[in-house]
Amino acid sequence: MIRALMHGCCGKMGRVITEICSADPQIEIVAGVDRIKDASLPYPVYSCLEECREQADVIIDFSNAAAADGLLEFCAARQIPVVLCTTGLSGEQLDKAEQAAKKTAVLRSANMSLGINTLLKVLHAVSGVLADAGFDMEIVEKHHNQKVDAPSGTALALADAINEALQGEYHYVYDRSGVRRKRDPKEIGLSAVRGGSIVGEHEVIFAGQDEVIELKHTAYSKAIFAKGAVQAAKFLAGQPAGMYDMSQVIG
Amino acid sequence: MIRALMHGCCGKMGRVITEICSADPQIEIVAGVDRIKDASLPYPVYSCLEECREQADVIIDFSNAAAADGLLEFCAARQIPVVLCTTGLSGEQLDKAEQAAKKTAVLRSANMSLGINTLLKVLHAVSGVLADAGFDMEIVEKHHNQKVDAPSGTALALADAINEALQGEYHYVYDRSGVRRKRDPKEIGLSAVRGGSIVGEHEVIFAGQDEVIELKHTAYSKAIFAKGAVQAAKFLAGQPAGMYDMSQVIG
Amino acid sequence: MIRALMHGCCGKMGRVITEICSADPQIEIVAGVDRIKDASLPYPVYSCLEECREQADVIIDFSNAAAADGLLEFCAARQIPVVLCTTGLSGEQLDKAEQAAKKTAVLRSANMSLGINTLLKVLHAVSGVLADAGFDMEIVEKHHNQKVDAPSGTALALADAINEALQGEYHYVYDRSGVRRKRDPKEIGLSAVRGGSIVGEHEVIFAGQDEVIELKHTAYSKAIFAKGAVQAAKFLAGQPAGMYDMSQVIG
Amino acid sequence: MIRALMHGCCGKMGRVITEICSADPQIEIVAGVDRIKDASLPYPVYSCLEECREQADVIIDFSNAAAADGLLEFCAARQIPVVLCTTGLSGEQLDKAEQAAKKTAVLRSANMSLGINTLLKVLHAVSGVLADAGFDMEIVEKHHNQKVDAPSGTALALADAINEALQGEYHYVYDRSGVRRKRDPKEIGLSAVRGGSIVGEHEVIFAGQDEVIELKHTAYSKAIFAKGAVQAAKFLAGQPAGMYDMSQVIG
Repeated sequence: MIRALMHGCCGKMGRVITEICSADPQIEIVAGVDRIKDASLPYPVYSCLEECREQADVIIDFSNAAAADGLLEFCAARQIPVVLCTTGLSGEQLDKAEQAAKKTAVLRSANMSLGINTLLKVLHAVSGVLADAGFDMEIVEKHHNQKVDAPSGTALALADAINEALQGEYHYVYDRSGVRRKRDPKEIGLSAVRGGSIVGEHEVIFAGQDEVIELKHTAYSKAIFAKGAVQAAKFLAGQPAGMYDMSQVIG
Repeated sequence: MIRALMHGCCGKMGRVITEICSADPQIEIVAGVDRIKDASLPYPVYSCLEECREQADVIIDFSNAAAADGLLEFCAARQIPVVLCTTGLSGEQLDKAEQAAKKTAVLRSANMSLGINTLLKVLHAVSGVLADAGFDMEIVEKHHNQKVDAPSGTALALADAINEALQGEYHYVYDRSGVRRKRDPKEIGLSAVRGGSIVGEHEVIFAGQDEVIELKHTAYSKAIFAKGAVQAAKFLAGQPAGMYDMSQVIG
Repeated sequence: MIRALMHGCCGKMGRVITEICSADPQIEIVAGVDRIKDASLPYPVYSCLEECREQADVIIDFSNAAAADGLLEFCAARQIPVVLCTTGLSGEQLDKAEQAAKKTAVLRSANMSLGINTLLKVLHAVSGVLADAGFDMEIVEKHHNQKVDAPSGTALALADAINEALQGEYHYVYDRSGVRRKRDPKEIGLSAVRGGSIVGEHEVIFAGQDEVIELKHTAYSKAIFAKGAVQAAKFLAGQPAGMYDMSQVIG
Repeated sequence: MIRALMHGCCGKMGRVITEICSADPQIEIVAGVDRIKDASLPYPVYSCLEECREQADVIIDFSNAAAADGLLEFCAARQIPVVLCTTGLSGEQLDKAEQAAKKTAVLRSANMSLGINTLLKVLHAVSGVLADAGFDMEIVEKHHNQKVDAPSGTALALADAINEALQGEYHYVYDRSGVRRKRDPKEIGLSAVRGGSIVGEHEVIFAGQDEVIELKHTAYSKAIFAKGAVQAAKFLAGQPAGMYDMSQVIG
């Protein structure tokens, strides 16, 4: 039985992860950390990591960027593997994660879902042959009307996967209005649609001469990210120090 | 039998229209005008309108913007209805079309296909009730990698149809990268995808709380524009002076 | 303030409707009926309609077919309008609903969402012109892997809307395997996809010569049916006797 | 320069292949075979293979099933590699192709396009991990209203690719109407949509808990099959005897 510590246990994602672990015989949350106290959770909740007395094999983090520095120092010092799901980390914090990864296992991904990570693998495999055959690559993502950033981190990760498979020769285009110009063969267009309560939709389009391939992922709830985080935690417990991402989890 | 004059008869669209009319017992092309001579066409071809001696009930125009001024003057002077399919007309030329419409019937549409014009009608009918229920409107269009303008004229016509149904209170957004901001409820996002040989795809998205409606049109060949032009010509012959568009043709 | 009685208040949909009404200043649930007692609901819960002492302007029903007979008799006798959302009613029960509608207002729809009912209106409006132009109509619906019936009632309602607009001349086809035959122009194909936890997706395809129109509705949660039921209740309170459906609600 | 013989050179596909080869410096059609004579083709046309005096490195076949027996015997006897694109071969003829493959290189695929064959590769790679994670697999194909068979051979090839990756444990379902039953986890549903002039659309759906992956291929013209046949011919010339398919061509 893997013993996990839930960092950010009283947030929305922390609660979903708690539910998933309750139903999974292979992993147990032994303690949680959050600024808010919540007696309804089935494990002790501490206000900071240092107070926590339980032994943990892995930490799952769904808190916020402000708490990331302390978390990374704690994990590095005690060599506890950490699944880092907080978004919006600064460049400095990403460097700190790299440093921590010299001491313990650190897993970070733009998107924790099995589906998106499967798509990333597919893009690595097919982009070369399709680009050679003259296909153009474009990405359209759709999210709810409260999302402030565009394009989504996941859309950028998909573009990066294509670009890495193509020796980094491509550049990204976010707006085609206002200029009269044919598409540059070395560009990847990224479009961001916003509306309603759409959880997250990502479509990668390979458009060739007289044929088009579309690879599309639709998320119906954020629970898929929680599920991915639990899978990642089960994978990461016991791994040697180093940086990991979901591609290793889905094998 | 309606007698049509094909203006721009040796271009790609002129030839498709010639084929369609050959198979249609209600309309006949009696003469063509083009700078190029082509003896293979089943009617006399003149290098300018003034040379043409055949009587016509309607002119179908698929030539180029440079020829539009002469065409409009000719149609107004002789009171011959004209289906104006040339794109890229200047503001001045559009004014000239309005002037000509005081003397004869002039039909012009952003898109000649039955499908897109049906979609425009639908948008007029449903945008109000969906906007009242809190739905957000977005448009994604996809075209081949040789198209120089973005968004397409048809995408703008679709946005205009929504906006007209909503008292013109909306503004258009073409790029969401580079700013961190929630979607304004009064915006319509327009995204332009470019790639391969895609003839033309337009998708209107109504995104609400927990439900989404998508209205999508896919063109598989430019022949649909030729077909629409012939339908328009059959409708326009005999109509009184005035500006018309495809919405009247599809009734 | 409209006073509603929630029939089937302890079920999943009853609870969602309770939440929606709590946040709506125009409607209040004054009492509930359910075989289960639940003290957490913000109104008295009775085990049968006859016990209920509160005055109601409208009854919202999301219970089960077994309870429908009693409900219809009660509404007819007391002339209380009823929004009938229970599915799986027998032919006899539907007759009973028609009878009750002679005494009070009865509203019933294959699907309670604003989106699907907007689509039904659109189909009534466009099917004629598209069929005349030679377009073929097909429907694809997608639902979760626990759904036992196929095609969905909503898919059939969409097909019926098309067929009514076309003088009932069409027949429905559910399977094309095993026969070698061209499509009959007077057929509407209905395909049912099942998988995962898909809440409900309906796509109506109009396929013509070189162009296709797709009208698609995606439900992300069942809350949209609850929302539609509340809208319907607010509309129905005070209406004269008769059969109603959602098309009148979305007006 | 590879020397090709075009079997069925006066058919629609033969002409498209002729055009593609004219523009390709690596391959040349040195002769054609067809029952029809056509002096406009840029190479000699014979009424049967035996009359042909030109030396060929490979034969491209887009004729008809009736001519397949003679073709296979000819290729086997002279050890000329053959790209077999004719569809509707009988079981006996497929056996004959296997026999011929002992003497020369024979390439046959359900679909000659790069896009579909890329999709087949992807399905081999991802079906295992997605099935393990509880995803359900479904296929929807769309074709024009003149197609007599359903589901398409390509849809079956896609289902077979999934099933092979999953140890052949799945069975196919073509109709879900008329039975009230939950989806069997070991089934793959295949739906066939027919309408208008749709060239060919294939969508593979992986539906999981709260997420869906869709892999879709759209053909805009049959020219993609001609292009694939030319690629195949260039690959096959000089290969040792054996059965080949497009997966080896796209490498």
